[in-house]
Amino acid sequence: MKKIDRRTFNNKIVKGVVAAALMGGMPLACGMGAASKKKKLGYALVGLGSYSEYQLAPSLAEAEHCYLAGIVTGTPEKEKIWMDKYDIPKENVYNYENFDAIAKNSDIDIVYVVLPNSMHAEFCIRAAKAGKHVVCEKPMAINVDECNAIIAACDDAGVKLGMGYRLQSEPYTNELKRFVREKTFGKVRYITAEMGYYSGSNPDQWRLNKALSGGGALGNMGVYAIQAAIYGTGENPISVTAQEYSTRPEYFKDTDETIMAQFEFPSGAVGNIMTSHNISMNRVHASCEKGWYALDPGSNYGPLAGETSKGKIEFPHERQQKLQMDDFVQHIQVGAPNRAPGEMGLRDMMIMEAIYTSIAEGGKKVLMDLAPGFGFEG
Amino acid sequence: MKKIDRRTFNNKIVKGVVAAALMGGMPLACGMGAASKKKKLGYALVGLGSYSEYQLAPSLAEAEHCYLAGIVTGTPEKEKIWMDKYDIPKENVYNYENFDAIAKNSDIDIVYVVLPNSMHAEFCIRAAKAGKHVVCEKPMAINVDECNAIIAACDDAGVKLGMGYRLQSEPYTNELKRFVREKTFGKVRYITAEMGYYSGSNPDQWRLNKALSGGGALGNMGVYAIQAAIYGTGENPISVTAQEYSTRPEYFKDTDETIMAQFEFPSGAVGNIMTSHNISMNRVHASCEKGWYALDPGSNYGPLAGETSKGKIEFPHERQQKLQMDDFVQHIQVGAPNRAPGEMGLRDMMIMEAIYTSIAEGGKKVLMDLAPGFGFEG
Repeated sequence: MKKIDRRTFNNKIVKGVVAAALMGGMPLACGMGAASKKKKLGYALVGLGSYSEYQLAPSLAEAEHCYLAGIVTGTPEKEKIWMDKYDIPKENVYNYENFDAIAKNSDIDIVYVVLPNSMHAEFCIRAAKAGKHVVCEKPMAINVDECNAIIAACDDAGVKLGMGYRLQSEPYTNELKRFVREKTFGKVRYITAEMGYYSGSNPDQWRLNKALSGGGALGNMGVYAIQAAIYGTGENPISVTAQEYSTRPEYFKDTDETIMAQFEFPSGAVGNIMTSHNISMNRVHASCEKGWYALDPGSNYGPLAGETSKGKIEFPHERQQKLQMDDFVQHIQVGAPNRAPGEMGLRDMMIMEAIYTSIAEGGKKVLMDLAPGFGFEG
Repeated sequence: MKKIDRRTFNNKIVKGVVAAALMGGMPLACGMGAASKKKKLGYALVGLGSYSEYQLAPSLAEAEHCYLAGIVTGTPEKEKIWMDKYDIPKENVYNYENFDAIAKNSDIDIVYVVLPNSMHAEFCIRAAKAGKHVVCEKPMAINVDECNAIIAACDDAGVKLGMGYRLQSEPYTNELKRFVREKTFGKVRYITAEMGYYSGSNPDQWRLNKALSGGGALGNMGVYAIQAAIYGTGENPISVTAQEYSTRPEYFKDTDETIMAQFEFPSGAVGNIMTSHNISMNRVHASCEKGWYALDPGSNYGPLAGETSKGKIEFPHERQQKLQMDDFVQHIQVGAPNRAPGEMGLRDMMIMEAIYTSIAEGGKKVLMDLAPGFGFEG
């Protein structure tokens, strides 16, 4: 008979209670003993572009379970600005060369990689090897092999890995997941998700450089459409057909401008996604047996807006990135679900590769062998 | 120098004034001389199914410029019911055998063919040969050759031909056309139109019998989606890719259940349509340079509902079929535009055939050579 010591036993109880509380909406504030007294975990942001500056840093300033403990930047002139603004000590500031020394820094619990896509794999793997938990911004990497390498590195190091899929922690999105789970509107029959924006002013941005981005609209905005198609139906697709369109090749020199893709799901539901760097749309809509639900906007930084055949959906707005980063800490500290595990990033990259394959083959149907539940939250 | 006699001259003036009034919304009631005093034209309905019974006959009862003058039915027991209800004299009642004798009936000006799709060509051609103006219910026929034959027969007979596209006379739809014409929201970049309903209760209906319908959801509801994609952009598509899905083959034994198709337009706009006998949706949405517009519902019998990035669209509801049948009389009597000419029905059938071709070829892109403006209202 396996011996369970008190520490293991207590830890299990706490995990179970917290998980139940999270699932059922029970307040976590009182009577949680050790779990509720855990220290705030320290995030280090790797890459100080606009997403870090305007979304992640302000979110960490508001977070309950975490704070901005360190930065990693390739731009020396940003160091002092960020140190002053967020009260970051000099010893928690790294560049891309000395980054691995972060292993010895006990202030840093989690490394959040916010670099151009082609640099995700390298820095996620280095972070894992440094013994830090890892958050990887979307899309996970530039191909499936890199995604697998990131997952393997985190497994080997025994650290947690989460995707920067802020919507997985967002209440409107989770309301859609509830509709699916509880069959509020019956079975989903058709899902459409259109996520794009018009990019016109900056042809030199890294997103339009394939060496840095790995692709265009599909990796940037299409991943939201793929995500919405999946959480909007609660299923992984089993096949895809896809088409690519180009109207401004002089601006989009080597990345995709507009892509449509059609999915089949195991239940028989079908769907269409559209993603674009040329078309402004941001919505998801599901037609079901007994009604419909929709978000529009459905994937921007919010506030999102929702409507169903039974009426409006309304939630108070909070910074999505704050929710996301707090949720990941809860996963690390008390075993709450990992709302966006690495397998979810891998799954979405597998779908993106299938979309590119279908385009290359003239719109032919590409079958996908994704196990049911693969990539869903733990 | 060509001599213009007084009658021709007056007629031209009247036509011009009326056309301008129709375009500009000027009231037609006063001072129109000959045109306003024209007699109401008599419609004969061929086929007394539910569309004739619940939509067309009540609309004719409310119409300004026309009335229900006769019926053509293959079901003898319907004759007396309709004669009594709509005060139709015995001599204006025909069956499919003696139908051609309608040529001698001066009460009947227009024959409206409301039969199963596979019978459209025969009865439209017989009506034209009888010297009657023709309205053909949608879809125009079961293939392009039949559409061409209908158009040729009407041309040969010197009669007018209109499609039963009620939405072309409908104010919400015409508001979308105005947005396109006036570029209210700039260039259209993406159009989506999803038109379908769940068919579950009657596997024996003629719509599900390919010999009678020529096809399934595509001809029935898809034609609305095709129409919406075109009037929503103001362009004919230049290419299409398409996919077909089946989840209930035991119910949809030989007609298409769900089809998606993706269009490219000459301007660079792209779009997706979905049509289904398994999925309930009824909407069109255009994303443009400077905003968006949408109808939901967008093709049912109304009232439709519209919204744009600038606010709601609101029009009083009238029977669409009344507007449609009155408009066609105005076309015949005073040269108002033919809002849904035969070429429009032909164009849509050409697009439907291209969709079936793409499906047969595994989703391959099919190019379409539709002249700009071909099939648009005159």
